[in-house]
Amino acid sequence: MTELSELTYALDTFYFLICGVLVMWMAAGFAMLEAGLVRSKNTAEILTKNFALFAVACTMYLLIGYYIMYSSDSGGFLPNLGVLIGVENSLDAITAGGEDAPYYSMRSDYFFQVVFVATAMSIVSGAVAERMKLWTFLAFAVIMTGIIYPVEGYWTWGGGWLSEVGYSDYAGSGIVHLAGAAAALAGVLVLGPRAGKYGKDGSIYAIPGANMPLATLGAFILWMGWFGFNGGSELKMSDAASANNVAQVFVNTNAAAAAGVIAALVLAKLWFRKADLTMALNGALAGLVAITADPLSPPALGAAIIGAIGGAIVVASIVALDKLKIDDPVGAISVHGVVGIWGVLVVPVSNADASFGAQIIGIIGIFAWVFLASLAVWLILKAIMGIRVSEEEEYEGVDLAECGLEAYPEFNGAKK
Amino acid sequence: MTELSELTYALDTFYFLICGVLVMWMAAGFAMLEAGLVRSKNTAEILTKNFALFAVACTMYLLIGYYIMYSSDSGGFLPNLGVLIGVENSLDAITAGGEDAPYYSMRSDYFFQVVFVATAMSIVSGAVAERMKLWTFLAFAVIMTGIIYPVEGYWTWGGGWLSEVGYSDYAGSGIVHLAGAAAALAGVLVLGPRAGKYGKDGSIYAIPGANMPLATLGAFILWMGWFGFNGGSELKMSDAASANNVAQVFVNTNAAAAAGVIAALVLAKLWFRKADLTMALNGALAGLVAITADPLSPPALGAAIIGAIGGAIVVASIVALDKLKIDDPVGAISVHGVVGIWGVLVVPVSNADASFGAQIIGIIGIFAWVFLASLAVWLILKAIMGIRVSEEEEYEGVDLAECGLEAYPEFNGAKK
Amino acid sequence: MTELSELTYALDTFYFLICGVLVMWMAAGFAMLEAGLVRSKNTAEILTKNFALFAVACTMYLLIGYYIMYSSDSGGFLPNLGVLIGVENSLDAITAGGEDAPYYSMRSDYFFQVVFVATAMSIVSGAVAERMKLWTFLAFAVIMTGIIYPVEGYWTWGGGWLSEVGYSDYAGSGIVHLAGAAAALAGVLVLGPRAGKYGKDGSIYAIPGANMPLATLGAFILWMGWFGFNGGSELKMSDAASANNVAQVFVNTNAAAAAGVIAALVLAKLWFRKADLTMALNGALAGLVAITADPLSPPALGAAIIGAIGGAIVVASIVALDKLKIDDPVGAISVHGVVGIWGVLVVPVSNADASFGAQIIGIIGIFAWVFLASLAVWLILKAIMGIRVSEEEEYEGVDLAECGLEAYPEFNGAKK
Repeated sequence: MTELSELTYALDTFYFLICGVLVMWMAAGFAMLEAGLVRSKNTAEILTKNFALFAVACTMYLLIGYYIMYSSDSGGFLPNLGVLIGVENSLDAITAGGEDAPYYSMRSDYFFQVVFVATAMSIVSGAVAERMKLWTFLAFAVIMTGIIYPVEGYWTWGGGWLSEVGYSDYAGSGIVHLAGAAAALAGVLVLGPRAGKYGKDGSIYAIPGANMPLATLGAFILWMGWFGFNGGSELKMSDAASANNVAQVFVNTNAAAAAGVIAALVLAKLWFRKADLTMALNGALAGLVAITADPLSPPALGAAIIGAIGGAIVVASIVALDKLKIDDPVGAISVHGVVGIWGVLVVPVSNADASFGAQIIGIIGIFAWVFLASLAVWLILKAIMGIRVSEEEEYEGVDLAECGLEAYPEFNGAKK
Repeated sequence: MTELSELTYALDTFYFLICGVLVMWMAAGFAMLEAGLVRSKNTAEILTKNFALFAVACTMYLLIGYYIMYSSDSGGFLPNLGVLIGVENSLDAITAGGEDAPYYSMRSDYFFQVVFVATAMSIVSGAVAERMKLWTFLAFAVIMTGIIYPVEGYWTWGGGWLSEVGYSDYAGSGIVHLAGAAAALAGVLVLGPRAGKYGKDGSIYAIPGANMPLATLGAFILWMGWFGFNGGSELKMSDAASANNVAQVFVNTNAAAAAGVIAALVLAKLWFRKADLTMALNGALAGLVAITADPLSPPALGAAIIGAIGGAIVVASIVALDKLKIDDPVGAISVHGVVGIWGVLVVPVSNADASFGAQIIGIIGIFAWVFLASLAVWLILKAIMGIRVSEEEEYEGVDLAECGLEAYPEFNGAKK
Repeated sequence: MTELSELTYALDTFYFLICGVLVMWMAAGFAMLEAGLVRSKNTAEILTKNFALFAVACTMYLLIGYYIMYSSDSGGFLPNLGVLIGVENSLDAITAGGEDAPYYSMRSDYFFQVVFVATAMSIVSGAVAERMKLWTFLAFAVIMTGIIYPVEGYWTWGGGWLSEVGYSDYAGSGIVHLAGAAAALAGVLVLGPRAGKYGKDGSIYAIPGANMPLATLGAFILWMGWFGFNGGSELKMSDAASANNVAQVFVNTNAAAAAGVIAALVLAKLWFRKADLTMALNGALAGLVAITADPLSPPALGAAIIGAIGGAIVVASIVALDKLKIDDPVGAISVHGVVGIWGVLVVPVSNADASFGAQIIGIIGIFAWVFLASLAVWLILKAIMGIRVSEEEEYEGVDLAECGLEAYPEFNGAKK
């Protein structure tokens, strides 16, 4: 006969797994978003990067990342490859009762965490699109998902120094999104802008994405997947208080995304006189990033305001970064970095357990570590493998050079 | 220690949230379906409409819609912005036991409802595609999702007069789908057909959609999302009878969709001598709309028959509306309106609690309210903002005029 | 008051339904994958086949397939159309307690099974793409999903002779994937290769797919859906041991897919000097197929190794089949057949309850039955309806001939 404790264990495990599936699905969202926002001649390559980085992230996290992030204090310094992701809970432990009894499967926790890792790396792929060598990118992905992200993840979620400082980041506006953007920024600085993006006279040329339906699909997928990303981060579903919390998180996540769209669309209309679809998409993502640091504390209307401000920030940030000649084809640094900071900073407004001081320490700590470590890795990779495709390859498109095939071989893609 | 009542509460809350995610996903389905069925020059604009309408729907429902639909009788007339979506259940209330104890989170109910709203509006966007001004459309969306839909939703699901009459509509063949189609029909009548659709000599010109894979993806997404739409409308999962009911709803929803495809495809083959893909897609949607009014009562074979008749109706209806020069680029009025009526009417055949009289009253009441209120709003908006893009903009495509970008800038889209 | 037994029943039912939705979603994955890998002139037709085959599979399984597969021993020989899919569990039976009490809804089991059926058939559509008549294909789908698959499914999962032999196949590397590939191989042999694929001098011409983003989306969808495919095949979630098992299955499924990508990508790079995206996609699917026969027994690292070997096998197999002039436009026979055999064979390495002898008997039995039965059906259909479109139709593309529309009417698709 199944006991009550087993059933709560089963429900929480199932909750983790389903939320994890939604987070895994975000990898497809990033792939479609980025494939839609680059030119057709670079589409197959960005798809390959996105598909492969998810595989690399899952494999590196299995090999060492999860161990670094969640077991470093309870095990040795060197990863123990024999028990990479821990030992599953025994039936005795589960049914023992009491506060310390495990209430979900270790494997379901691992699953939820492993699909998270790729998110940070997916942010990078968009920012460095259309000019970075594929294998250099994948080599960076190995280090980022195996070491750089797990180390700073450990700081907060693994019980490290940032958690002791009181840094508050529910689902990772800073830990995941700002981290991804910091790695991306380092890469973009080493890499330089795409050929033809900035004129010698200071003019900025728009380089339109080749496939808007694909970009829109990507944004919808990310919106959907974010319910798992934020909703699963409550880490418990099986009692009434947790269930109420998870429901609040779903409501706030949706409200912030919706308000982000409206703010970005209206601002773009006022500023550029056009209902710019790409800004609407980035507005949704900005709303989602903004609420991710605390989707639980604010009421729904507060979440909408946080998301709307995020949506406005992203429009301004995309314009500003272009003026700084930081070439980010999909706006990833603005969406995940600049708005990620906004999300982390606004937490204390609705959450009494958070403080501005700790939030600022978190932002500085995460950014400094990820940016500097990434910069070092990018520079080393540049020296060893080279980081940028040749001018001719960039002109012809990286699809043929790197992947040996075209994304749309029958459609007359512009080769400019 | 978690009590049993808490655990049932958690499961029902989780069930609501997951079904809600599936319904939210339908917004992507409508976006892809419509983007695939319009011409490439109007694709970015229809994507913008679909993305923005979902945001508008979620925001308006948060601000006033949910309050109107579910709290009007227990609160004042004017929406109370401070407690927009109600107060969450307390732990005491949850564990009190008895018939009246809340068995799911208020927020999870809100989440399930808020994602429903956009569905009705997504139906409109397809029917008015390729010629309506974007901001007029969004202004209509504000009224439709904030007031028109919530009022008629209140009539049945909020405990209003239609529920007292005995109108039976499990997941909304009438309340959601017919309502969306009624608003769409009003819009189409005010707007008129697309340029070049109907010749002066009475001939009808087919205007093929630009991207069939996208349309097919949209139909698959809608099919998937419909399991949440119908499956979540049981509103309870945690006891054996409810679980059996939800499972029956999933089975019937799938059977009706499948039979709708077969009926539409075979009919199109016999009628037009071709296996018309767009008819197969609309056949699936017709099967889904047809079973939505009662996916619980019929056995699976009955559901298949209801869906198959829906699939046949939609083919005939699309042909008939074209003869009436009602120009609906995606067939939304046929799929959701004509077949929605079929779905509502067939309920009493398998459900002894429903009567034909009440079903007819419901159809007339919902159609009259939504059609007339929408007509008034469309006419007012036409007077204030204008409703139709200029002839030149329509010829050039609304993408550049409204959004300032093209959906496929590198592919040689026809500009005809 | 809800009893504990009812709540476990509700959770297991919900688990089945959600996993079933994920499996249903795989139909969209196959459709997108195949639509991306064929030429644009054959895209609408492959979409029609995929959409229609899902409908046919669901309807045939409702009419006779489920009965054959799971009720043949408890009922008569001829399907009883009145109780096609059995009688739902009564409340008394559910709350009776004891080992024999049903712990999930019969309908939820049916739902999970019915969405499985289309998978086998989706494998066929890819292999015979670009040259088979649409209605011949659908006629085959009727027999395959109504009889051929249910019969061999009955052998193991319905309690037939293969289960008595000890054949072990958790979620169907053999029962579903090898079966689909066997039917596909029979079809390809009857049908012959596409015009222009193999030169008279023995040279092999690559025929690139028209839409790589679509193919990538399809692979992501399949990866996502596979969590339901494998995860749901534990058939129980509600106790601690089952929950742990399901979580292990999710982890292993993901690890195998990720490792399959890496292996295929690196092998393609070494072999062809290019990061071939299509090989990466097929590597993921190969990893998934390989682990499907036993995603529970191996540790995560073992699953990764099984998947990596699958990813390497698929690259070699695709090259080998081309040398044998077996023309499979999407690589389905390699992914599902060759790697399916690998998945079945490797089970005894980690699962002490399985034996190589029984696995080999299972492979031979399933392949022989499905291949020979399919061959007979294909040959009969060829005699009655014809199996291949005319040379002119193949040259012009089957979209116009079979569906009367084009997939991308505005994009200059090559007609070569």
